[in-house]
Order: sequence, then C-alpha cells, then structure tokens
Amino acid sequence: MKLGLAAWHRYMLDSDPDALDDLIADDAVFHSPVVHTPQAGRAKVLMYLTAAGQVFGNGTFRYVRELIDGPEACLEFECEMDGIAVNGIDLIRFDLEGRIVDFKVMIRPIKAMNKVWELMAARMENT
Amino acid sequence: MKLGLAAWHRYMLDSDPDALDDLIADDAVFHSPVVHTPQAGRAKVLMYLTAAGQVFGNGTFRYVRELIDGPEACLEFECEMDGIAVNGIDLIRFDLEGRIVDFKVMIRPIKAMNKVWELMAARMENT
Repeated sequence: MKLGLAAWHRYMLDSDPDALDDLIADDAVFHSPVVHTPQAGRAKVLMYLTAAGQVFGNGTFRYVRELIDGPEACLEFECEMDGIAVNGIDLIRFDLEGRIVDFKVMIRPIKAMNKVWELMAARMENT
Repeated sequence: MKLGLAAWHRYMLDSDPDALDDLIADDAVFHSPVVHTPQAGRAKVLMYLTAAGQVFGNGTFRYVRELIDGPEACLEFECEMDGIAVNGIDLIRFDLEGRIVDFKVMIRPIKAMNKVWELMAARMENT
C-alpha cells in the first residue's frame, strides 16, 4: 500500500504513462465525481485518469491533506481552473501488490464541479 | 479522537441536539459541498449540521467506509433523495478533547449535488 501510494505520488509529479499503466489493477474501477455509473476495467480507468491528469495538470494542483488507513487513502487536493477554486478528494484503494483497484473522485463546490465536468467532457470527446 | 468519532456516530443515530451542541468546538469551521466560502464559528456549524441532518435524515442514510488517521476521519456515505443516489464524504477533524473543529462535506455525482443544494436551500430559508 505504501509502495502504491508512493508510486501514485511519483506519477502525479512526472505524468509518465507507463508508470500509470503499471499502477492500475486489471479489475480496477473508477468512480467519476460527475456521473453515478462506475467505470470498470483497467482500460476505462486509464482513460479517465489520463484525461483527469490533462484537465487537472495546469500547474496549480496540489495535495493538501492525506488520510491513510490500511489499504485505503483519502488525498485532498486544491487547484484552480479558469479562475475557479477547486477542492476535492481522491479516495483510492490499493491491492496487496500496491496496485490501484478502486479510485473515486469528489469535487466541491458546485461551481468547481460544473467546471470540471465541462473540461472533462471536452477532453473525452477529443480522445 | 475516538471518543469524538463515537459521539458523532451516536448523534447520527439519535439526532439529539444537545449531543451535537457538546460535540462542536467554539472555533469550528464548516465547508459546504455547494459553496466555496467556509462557515466559521460554532453557531454556523450547528446551523449547517442541523439542516443537513434534516435533509439527509430520510431513513436511507448509511456510512459505507471509514478512514481514520490521527485526529481526522473520512466517512463515506450513501443515501437516496427523491429517487437519486447520493454518495459523499464527511471529512472531519477533531481536537484533543474529541470535539469537531473542522467539518467538510463532498457529494457526487452532479445530479446528487444539485438535489442536495435544492433541499438544503429550501431548509435554510425556513430557519
């Protein structure tokens, strides 16, 4: 778990797609802040996390709080998008090999949620 | 911290306003899922948590995951509002006496966020 979390933080620094690929379990599930339906399977999780990395990777993103309990971590972040303050969490569960099996994102406030939705939708349409 | 968290869970079961009153520190801050501006001070925190208790207290609310790390807890919940599935977290920091000093709520997906906003606004207008 600690290895997995360290690998995630490393990925957030250098955005190496191969590193992300190694980090996601085959049966991983992604839970978007915007839609209810879980996105199951490594390919979909990679697609969402890559798009999120592009949308959030504007130089203002930083983790501000970290709760770790057993195989799970709650990482709170802050960033700015088009002048809007975005606050949210990555709620991540790792397997015994340190790979991500479950990744859930929540965003506040509502203005930020709408902005993330807009930018993510534009990004997903272009892929 | 464990005492504080136990007291919070007890309050969620019996909704005793006196118990909530004892649980909030004087300088506590509430961070709404909907608006950016923090609500500072015991009176405002009590007002928001009481309104939230009424909106979420429809018999479907349950905590489904709990991460505890030092003085902080991330409690994930699920409930239903007007047929809409609501998923969210209470991110709580306790002081050394087990009182709540910081309470942040996040909600997903966007449909649920809009529903919570609608119901909370109606509730706050009536108080």
